[in-house]
Amino acid sequence: MMSESKLLSVVEHWLPRIEVAGIPSATAKEVITRAGDWAGWLPAWLEEADRNEAIAVDAEAKGWRVTAGEAYARAAACAHFGQFMAFEDLAAKAAAAERKCTIYRRAAPLLDPPAQPVGIPFEGAALTGYLRRPVGVDAAPLALIVPGSDSTKEEFPNFEKHFLARGIATFSLDGPGQGEGRLFGPLRPDITAAIAATLERLKGESGLSGKVALVGMAFGGNLVLRAASALPDLAAVVSINGFADLGAFAPALPQVYRDNLRFALGTEDVLGAAAGFTIANAPPIMVPALIIHGGRDKIFPVSEAEASARACSGRVDLHVLPEGNHVCNNIPWVYRPLVADWLGDRFADR
Amino acid sequence: MMSESKLLSVVEHWLPRIEVAGIPSATAKEVITRAGDWAGWLPAWLEEADRNEAIAVDAEAKGWRVTAGEAYARAAACAHFGQFMAFEDLAAKAAAAERKCTIYRRAAPLLDPPAQPVGIPFEGAALTGYLRRPVGVDAAPLALIVPGSDSTKEEFPNFEKHFLARGIATFSLDGPGQGEGRLFGPLRPDITAAIAATLERLKGESGLSGKVALVGMAFGGNLVLRAASALPDLAAVVSINGFADLGAFAPALPQVYRDNLRFALGTEDVLGAAAGFTIANAPPIMVPALIIHGGRDKIFPVSEAEASARACSGRVDLHVLPEGNHVCNNIPWVYRPLVADWLGDRFADR
Repeated sequence: MMSESKLLSVVEHWLPRIEVAGIPSATAKEVITRAGDWAGWLPAWLEEADRNEAIAVDAEAKGWRVTAGEAYARAAACAHFGQFMAFEDLAAKAAAAERKCTIYRRAAPLLDPPAQPVGIPFEGAALTGYLRRPVGVDAAPLALIVPGSDSTKEEFPNFEKHFLARGIATFSLDGPGQGEGRLFGPLRPDITAAIAATLERLKGESGLSGKVALVGMAFGGNLVLRAASALPDLAAVVSINGFADLGAFAPALPQVYRDNLRFALGTEDVLGAAAGFTIANAPPIMVPALIIHGGRDKIFPVSEAEASARACSGRVDLHVLPEGNHVCNNIPWVYRPLVADWLGDRFADR
Repeated sequence: MMSESKLLSVVEHWLPRIEVAGIPSATAKEVITRAGDWAGWLPAWLEEADRNEAIAVDAEAKGWRVTAGEAYARAAACAHFGQFMAFEDLAAKAAAAERKCTIYRRAAPLLDPPAQPVGIPFEGAALTGYLRRPVGVDAAPLALIVPGSDSTKEEFPNFEKHFLARGIATFSLDGPGQGEGRLFGPLRPDITAAIAATLERLKGESGLSGKVALVGMAFGGNLVLRAASALPDLAAVVSINGFADLGAFAPALPQVYRDNLRFALGTEDVLGAAAGFTIANAPPIMVPALIIHGGRDKIFPVSEAEASARACSGRVDLHVLPEGNHVCNNIPWVYRPLVADWLGDRFADR
């Protein structure tokens, strides 16, 4: 009964997110129906990952590169959503996350434009991310995309397309505590050093103009705001359904998200750790900022978007989209073009 | 009560089709909820078309071309689905169909690659369609796409992308009786002359290799098979959930589709007219043929795909996808890449 209600709760919160990641709603519903209850969630998604990987392998053998790339990417998304919010068996979760990374590495060179894996020297090991360059652009500005908690760089090939179509390169990063960045321990409030290391590493890459903006969603929205307050050379920062101060509303978070935080923050003391995720004590954000929030977000309240906007001392554009859910993934055709166009204008301003 | 059950019936049959046309499921569900019952269907979709058109106009004014093109195309899809299956007020249906065409004409030059409107001299007037050429290809083969009944060339920008990504140009045509082709009266069993006129007209266009394949879905699947039996110079033909002989199963069609046929065939005598839609008396199909069918199609039975395959005397590849619904739009990631890859191979064969 408990496990069935967790399934419903996860589906209610995140079905649109699965769809924007490239899995049509009918397919997602088939997988969820096969899962039956929460115990079946991870195995059902892994089975779907297997199936898509088999399509990809077959297509690659036939020279059908576009199909192979899309099927590997879809297989990776299936493995991702299988381990997503599944905290009951952490070894199984880690194995599925590893599987996701392995499959996506096969997708990367087949995507159009290809995604180049980049390792970033950091704290004695390497952060990882994927760089994509828009076709036909010699010196492209860059959108550096930072995921939320229990999110990952492999979730973004469709999001990246919006920037690429507008002549903006993308770099999707697993920061410390995110995806492959779990190597560096749990999520940390300040990822300025990781962002700085990424920008330093990317300086040697061809095809980039050197102009950079940060784009973060959910937890990543908070992380990029904090990093932007410390990195004045950025062209802009975008926070999508992020927050200014986790401590202010953490006690009111729904159960399905508390489980997530216990894992993401690496502690049973979620409320204690939450207090550290704030931009209250950071220097003011001077770079142009776009703050987007869905009015129906049941996880992070709209008041946090307003507080985020108040922390910005430069240009700030605040859009509260009344019908938007968490990360506005139920209206991707509103927020995704808006972010990419707004960034295009900021890059042109500089 | 009747009107509520029609709403449910339309939604059950066609929600995945709305999604593959570029309207996320959450958005479609919001529109349907606002509609409430069948009487609200057309106005709710027109309201959504207005909203997307306003986004497009605003984006165009700001120089956000990609966003404008996508929003106009989405607005056109909303107007299309509003008039789709709405046969109660034919003047309102015609006005919405006209609106769809007008809005899509604004999308066309903004799409990537752009869609070029082409008029085709035919029976003293003009058929219309849109030509799109793959980027970076000098002499591309062409997929000529033929819609089904109550379908339309404006429904296909996302479908076209699959061909374009593989170096294949697309031409989406409203044949006689389809979309703007209603000018020529109702749907006719033999569209060979219309296809021949289209190919003649396209000979003067740059960027095409001269190799052509026909792709039809649902009713269009039958139409392209019949045309392929008469046009031996084609590189290939693809029928997706089409049929060989409408008369054989017309009496068993569900009510929601009978209303459609009364309009599409322009007669109260649906069963009488249905008998004409057959390839039984046509010459055998000698060009390579791909026949795809969804095993869960509640409109056209799988046996019709088998009969279509038997009518092919050249190479024939039959794929019955057990979980596919009508036109397999619940599994677009299976059938769409398959069609485009298979066509790519046939063009390479020649």
